[in-house]
Amino acid sequence: MSLPVQELLARGVALTDVALERLLPGSEVLPHSIHRAMRHSVFAGGKRLRPLLAMETAVMVAGSEMDGVVELGAALEMIHTYSLIHDDLPALDNDDLRRGKPTCHVAYGEAIAILAGDALQTLAYETLANLRCSAQAAVQIVKEVAVATGTGVGGSLPPGMIGGQVMDVEGEGQKPTAEMVEAIHRAKTGALITVSIVTGGIYAGGSAEQIAHLRAFGERIGLAFQIVDDVLDLTQSSESLGKTAGKDTATDKATWPAVFGIQESCRQADALVKDAFLALDGFGERAENLKSVARYLTERKN
Amino acid sequence: MSLPVQELLARGVALTDVALERLLPGSEVLPHSIHRAMRHSVFAGGKRLRPLLAMETAVMVAGSEMDGVVELGAALEMIHTYSLIHDDLPALDNDDLRRGKPTCHVAYGEAIAILAGDALQTLAYETLANLRCSAQAAVQIVKEVAVATGTGVGGSLPPGMIGGQVMDVEGEGQKPTAEMVEAIHRAKTGALITVSIVTGGIYAGGSAEQIAHLRAFGERIGLAFQIVDDVLDLTQSSESLGKTAGKDTATDKATWPAVFGIQESCRQADALVKDAFLALDGFGERAENLKSVARYLTERKN
Repeated sequence: MSLPVQELLARGVALTDVALERLLPGSEVLPHSIHRAMRHSVFAGGKRLRPLLAMETAVMVAGSEMDGVVELGAALEMIHTYSLIHDDLPALDNDDLRRGKPTCHVAYGEAIAILAGDALQTLAYETLANLRCSAQAAVQIVKEVAVATGTGVGGSLPPGMIGGQVMDVEGEGQKPTAEMVEAIHRAKTGALITVSIVTGGIYAGGSAEQIAHLRAFGERIGLAFQIVDDVLDLTQSSESLGKTAGKDTATDKATWPAVFGIQESCRQADALVKDAFLALDGFGERAENLKSVARYLTERKN
Repeated sequence: MSLPVQELLARGVALTDVALERLLPGSEVLPHSIHRAMRHSVFAGGKRLRPLLAMETAVMVAGSEMDGVVELGAALEMIHTYSLIHDDLPALDNDDLRRGKPTCHVAYGEAIAILAGDALQTLAYETLANLRCSAQAAVQIVKEVAVATGTGVGGSLPPGMIGGQVMDVEGEGQKPTAEMVEAIHRAKTGALITVSIVTGGIYAGGSAEQIAHLRAFGERIGLAFQIVDDVLDLTQSSESLGKTAGKDTATDKATWPAVFGIQESCRQADALVKDAFLALDGFGERAENLKSVARYLTERKN
């Protein structure tokens, strides 16, 4: 059954937040500071897009609601949050504001922020190891997530999230080229979005062929998502973004509009989404909700 | 067959280093800086005690050499190294020297050191997901490692490695009590040593009863190991330690000798090792090599 995207988004947030509330140690659990720091960043108003992609993919592949897939979503959100906490640190992007709130190190100090990021990565893998699917599927999911969020290993595999962060840090001050921006975007944001879709499919018991289609879909959606993010950074105010707007330009960061301009960037994002949808042809009407979410990713305003 | 401990140690280093060399991306793989930083810290002359404990435990439980257990050891060493890299950062212990070499952030800068630590944790889980054991055993190993290296969740489980680091950071400047030092030691060092032994047993297909005995053994050995480390910090020179000696006293850190004195600390470490050996009674003579390694941990001079 196809639902309005606002309903899908609201349900994604509600379900993910309940799971995260249950999986994260409480603020009263010792040692207090790190659990409060983890919760500060995890419950800072994230849109839970990666969990939503995992959940909608699983439902699409299984053809019905999937028990426990929300825990996969929660683990992906923990990984996303750990990467934001570390990315915001003074030694990296040095950001004070994230989703309209003080960043983790501003609120809890650098030492606790570093360890809170570490602990969220650790808790994500604990959560994946506890997934209510077969051990074979769980091991495959752990492997997919680790590869997607690692440094990449050169030719045979695309670089992962941390590899993208390194390229981003090292590219600062250089004139961005199309190849460089695409490589950074595919790695830094695209890989985690792709793996959210792929692991949702693995959780639901998808065939190798289905997983290949999901991967093709995810790679295009992931890149489109980051292009839109770059455009929003240029065109929206800090207030509506909840983070420091225009920062990417100010620091000469590798962004899509810096290479292609705003209009062409928007056109390419749209084209990527349309192209991505072709990969879902085999799922027929069952793909409608996932497509709505993907469409939202290129039409959102913050 | 029982071997001299120096032979066991040398074999542990040699086998682990071959596996790490194979598992870590090469220095020439893009992005260069992070792979060089990871290798800098992983190949800084570590004694590979955690891999050795995992390997000797697996051989003891299986009754013969275990194929592929060295990859489990390599993953544990990656986790150990990631924790050292982050612990050495300016915001935490601010150490310039580790095993006689510049620490990761001194050699590669803070941003790359933070990401290199992150990437070693990620690669450890990728490695665990690729272990050549059953999927059931691999999932159990991922779970055990994540719990042991996390923050702990209050009453039901002992705190893990990151929880110990937090307690250590927050305890600085306070007069250390016996309870506090024991909690920090069990979490910060003990948990990873214990899980090296426990996962070696799981990899080898040990029964629940055997795993319980291994856990009891590991907890005592882990605590004894850290007590000896504290004593060495007080009694050895920086040169023989390869790190800044006396730093624990200088910063009023929670150490065993600060509470019990040097002589009583040594006595307690010996008593813990003897007590630990009782838990291995069921393995008979097959436990000799593992016992030799454990004995070495409390007699080492650096």
